[in-house]
Amino acid sequence: MNGVKVIQINESVFAQNDRSAEIIRSRLSAQGTLFLNFMSSPGSGKTTTLVALINRLKNRLSIGEMDVDIESSLDAQRVADLTGIRSMQIHNGGLCHIDADMTARALLEYDTQGLDLLILENIGNLVCPAEFDTGAHKNVTILSVPEGDDKPLKYPLMYTVSDVVLINKMDTLDYFDFNIEKAKAHILELNPKAIFFPISAKTGAGLDAFCDWIVEELRTLRSGGR
Amino acid sequence: MNGVKVIQINESVFAQNDRSAEIIRSRLSAQGTLFLNFMSSPGSGKTTTLVALINRLKNRLSIGEMDVDIESSLDAQRVADLTGIRSMQIHNGGLCHIDADMTARALLEYDTQGLDLLILENIGNLVCPAEFDTGAHKNVTILSVPEGDDKPLKYPLMYTVSDVVLINKMDTLDYFDFNIEKAKAHILELNPKAIFFPISAKTGAGLDAFCDWIVEELRTLRSGGR
Repeated sequence: MNGVKVIQINESVFAQNDRSAEIIRSRLSAQGTLFLNFMSSPGSGKTTTLVALINRLKNRLSIGEMDVDIESSLDAQRVADLTGIRSMQIHNGGLCHIDADMTARALLEYDTQGLDLLILENIGNLVCPAEFDTGAHKNVTILSVPEGDDKPLKYPLMYTVSDVVLINKMDTLDYFDFNIEKAKAHILELNPKAIFFPISAKTGAGLDAFCDWIVEELRTLRSGGR
Repeated sequence: MNGVKVIQINESVFAQNDRSAEIIRSRLSAQGTLFLNFMSSPGSGKTTTLVALINRLKNRLSIGEMDVDIESSLDAQRVADLTGIRSMQIHNGGLCHIDADMTARALLEYDTQGLDLLILENIGNLVCPAEFDTGAHKNVTILSVPEGDDKPLKYPLMYTVSDVVLINKMDTLDYFDFNIEKAKAHILELNPKAIFFPISAKTGAGLDAFCDWIVEELRTLRSGGR
C-alpha cells in the first residue's frame, strides 16, 4: 500500500479521546508545563480552592487557568479578579464534561508557552468528566465534608481516575457525619495510589502541603520523571 | 397510503423522549398515582430527605420508590431499610441521567397499581438529568446550603425545569455564606413559577409543609386538575 495513508475511523470515542489527550500531555511535558485537571460535584469549593491555591503559588510559579462552564463566565472572572492571573472561560454548550479535543481547541487560543502550571476547572459533575481524559498530567478531585463519606461508593469511576483527592471544608467537620478514614478507605479500594490532602479553602488549612506537592510534581516533570 | 404505517425515525432524541414521558405521565394520571422526580448534586441529601419524607407520609399514602444509581444499590437499600416501603434500584450502567424509556422499562418490573405516590431518586448530577423528562408530574430539586447560593446561575437548565426547590441543610446556615433570598431570586429569574420549601432533612424542620404540598398535588391530580 505504497503512498496510501490509512485512517482508522471506527475506533471508539474513548480511544480517539485518549489519543488526543496523549498529544496534549506530550506537548505540555515537552515545554515543561504541569497540567492539572480539577473535578468535583457542584458546590464542593473548586473555585474557592483554586483562588486560594493560585494566590499561594503565583509568586513562585507562572500559572494559567481555564474554566469550563455550561454558559456562565462567573468562575473564570472570579479567578481573574481574585488572583490577577490570566484566566479563560470555556463555554461547552450544555455538555456535562470537557474532553481532550475541546481542551485542544481551547489551547489553540490560550498561549501556554512559559507557564509552569496550567489548571483546568472542569464542570461540576461526578459522572461524565471522569470518563474523558483531558490531557492533564494529574486529576485532582475535591470531596467536601458536607457531601458525605459515601460519595466514592456512589461515583466510583471518578475516584478510580483521581490521582489526588482534596478533602475540603474540613472546618465544618463538627457539623456533619463525615468519617475521613472511611472516605479514604473507600477511595483506596478503588485506587490504591490515591494521595489525600485534607484542606479548608476558606481558612487555608492544609493548602501549603498541597502546594508543595505541586512544586514537587513540576520538578519531577522537568527532570523527565514521567 | 392505505394500510401503510409510517414510522418517523428522524426525530430528535429529546422529542422521542418527550413522547415516552407523556405516555408514562398519562398512564400514572389515569390510575391516580402522583409521580415525583427528585434531582440534585451529589451529597445534597436526596436519600436522607426521601427517608424522612416517606416516614412522615407512609401512614397517609401508599408510596413506592425507584432509585437510580450508576452501579451501587446503597440508596434503594437505605430507603427500604429505614422506611419499610417497597424500593427498587435501577442501575443505569454508568450513564449520567435517566430518561423516559429507562423509566418505562423500570415500570415494567415495578407494579405501581394502587400507589398514591411514586418517587424517583435520580442520579446526583445538576447537568444531564435536567435534559430528560422522566414522565414525572413534577420535578423536585434539592439545593443544599453548603453548595452555595450561586448554583442556579451555573446550572440554569436544572432550575428552569424544577417545579419545586427544597433548600436543604438549613440547620447549617450559620456556617456557610448562603443567602436564601439571593438563591430564590436566581431561581425565580429562570422559572417564575418555582415553589420553595426551606428544610432540614436531619432535624425534620420544614418537611411537614412539603408533605402538605404533596397531598394537595395528589388531590389536584385526582380531581382531574392537570
